[in-house]
Amino acid sequence: MPELRKDPITGRWVIISTDRAKRPEDFAREQVIPKGGRFCPFCPGNETKTPPEILAYRAGGEPNSPGWTLRVVPNKFPALRVEGELNRQGDGLYDKMTGIGAHEIFIETPDHFKSLAEVEEKRIEDLFWAFRDRATDLKKDIRLRYILFFKNHGEYAGATLEHTHSQLIALPVIPRNVQEEIDGSKRYFDYKERCVFCDIVRQELSSTVRIVLETDHFVAVAPWAPRFPFETWIIPKLHHSHIESIAAPAVANLATVIKQTLQKLDKTLERPPYNIVLHTGPLQEQPMQHYHWHIEIMPKLTRVAGFEEGSGFYINPTPPEEAAKFLREAALV
Amino acid sequence: MPELRKDPITGRWVIISTDRAKRPEDFAREQVIPKGGRFCPFCPGNETKTPPEILAYRAGGEPNSPGWTLRVVPNKFPALRVEGELNRQGDGLYDKMTGIGAHEIFIETPDHFKSLAEVEEKRIEDLFWAFRDRATDLKKDIRLRYILFFKNHGEYAGATLEHTHSQLIALPVIPRNVQEEIDGSKRYFDYKERCVFCDIVRQELSSTVRIVLETDHFVAVAPWAPRFPFETWIIPKLHHSHIESIAAPAVANLATVIKQTLQKLDKTLERPPYNIVLHTGPLQEQPMQHYHWHIEIMPKLTRVAGFEEGSGFYINPTPPEEAAKFLREAALV
Repeated sequence: MPELRKDPITGRWVIISTDRAKRPEDFAREQVIPKGGRFCPFCPGNETKTPPEILAYRAGGEPNSPGWTLRVVPNKFPALRVEGELNRQGDGLYDKMTGIGAHEIFIETPDHFKSLAEVEEKRIEDLFWAFRDRATDLKKDIRLRYILFFKNHGEYAGATLEHTHSQLIALPVIPRNVQEEIDGSKRYFDYKERCVFCDIVRQELSSTVRIVLETDHFVAVAPWAPRFPFETWIIPKLHHSHIESIAAPAVANLATVIKQTLQKLDKTLERPPYNIVLHTGPLQEQPMQHYHWHIEIMPKLTRVAGFEEGSGFYINPTPPEEAAKFLREAALV
Repeated sequence: MPELRKDPITGRWVIISTDRAKRPEDFAREQVIPKGGRFCPFCPGNETKTPPEILAYRAGGEPNSPGWTLRVVPNKFPALRVEGELNRQGDGLYDKMTGIGAHEIFIETPDHFKSLAEVEEKRIEDLFWAFRDRATDLKKDIRLRYILFFKNHGEYAGATLEHTHSQLIALPVIPRNVQEEIDGSKRYFDYKERCVFCDIVRQELSSTVRIVLETDHFVAVAPWAPRFPFETWIIPKLHHSHIESIAAPAVANLATVIKQTLQKLDKTLERPPYNIVLHTGPLQEQPMQHYHWHIEIMPKLTRVAGFEEGSGFYINPTPPEEAAKFLREAALV
């Protein structure tokens, strides 16, 4: 019998097919393997082919020259721009504003052929320090209300260049899904006087069926009502609404949990395309008792996105308990 | 300068790239042309390969034999089932219910090679009568709260069989996007004492820049804040919250506007994959002054769905005014 499950944060219902569950080998998909052989603006030596760097971690060498281990550059084709005035305007019954914001690329390693699952943990750690550095800087612009940090891995997940990278879009509005999570977790807090994410961590650690892996500071879990097969969330055990509050040892631990989770996904699903999104509190807001930052990893295995976007309704052919079992049992390389 | 635009119904902000707008030829995509040559359970003569028909329009002949022009059958692999009890249950802090509902397939024509843009208008008209027949029947089951009527056209849009068909999923919950539209249009109504959709129709007909085509009873428009390039909505001029209230002449007119809109999309975008979703009022609710049924057509031209689903944030590289101009000027075959 199929089952409808409700996401405890947003209240979104999804259909979970428990009858004819799809196993990892049932999904036909792109296998993400960098091929190389084409000009890559993210490779060392080609620094002049991107806009000048905003930030780089390097042992030595001049800015915009080789020697870096991580490099942050503005997107050459930005979705939003920092210059200009934030101008709100009407057009009859409609509303618009100027596209003020920022769009930056985080080149995670100089190595063209390594994925985020394959780089040294130090590279992933640095990625989060770099994000924090950039967030601290962008926060000073009070027009900006949110920084969306994400990664598209593989062409099918929206990546246009194969050299591994993440992106940041700073926005004058709060993205809808984050606002929904904040509103939903506020309702839960008002009723229970507890954080829903903290409750989820507790319940998942006690039942263990949806746990993918656990480290000192984090749990990687298949969520109760996943929209996508093998969707996996990384939730910090310690309550913080904003990732900026994270302590140094937890960042090292975050690198470990991300690397191992991605390795398990690569092993189980044969290097699938995926999207990663960081959900954290809005920029200009104080720490919140009811919200809890986390990371969502969404493998792109199915092809039904248009309908789902039109209805907000998801059918997931893989129960999270099965997905978690496969991932839990996947041996790390 | 890019622009942020707010959807007046849901309040969703999208980024519209006005600088480097993508034109129809800039999208690489699947061209949807039925190839045939494989066994098709929807073709005449193969009626026994589907579950027995629930409804068929036919000139003569026995049920489950050739002679039909439209055929409705249960989905062989249903997402939800009608048998059983609607059982709500908790699991710690989580909520679930049994997957009660219905999942039906509407085979729109016996012709394997014609798309919905190519069939006679009478076939499209019949499709809506068949939907109405099925809705009237399913409505008697008071456990069901919504009927989602949709179409996946082309493999990239989620169609698994190429023979043209639509689908219905009857649900014990109201899909999220419909609920958001109802809530948003209620807020507008409370403030303005007018229906937001009626206001949109009026404003679009007076400015004309986003009009794709107009018929006696309908407008096809590129919405102010589209999520997807060439997204097109079909809105009835007459206010009704539920499509069931539609009069017979309007159904004939609806067939015309759908056929012509799809022909224009096929012409402009070279037979793109697309999804169509019907948004109408919930099953067990009385007519609403603030809600207004309509149809959303979403061509699948871009590949960024995972990130968009994770954030609820959309970047659309084609301003609706440009999309509408291309579609308006596309000559009908």
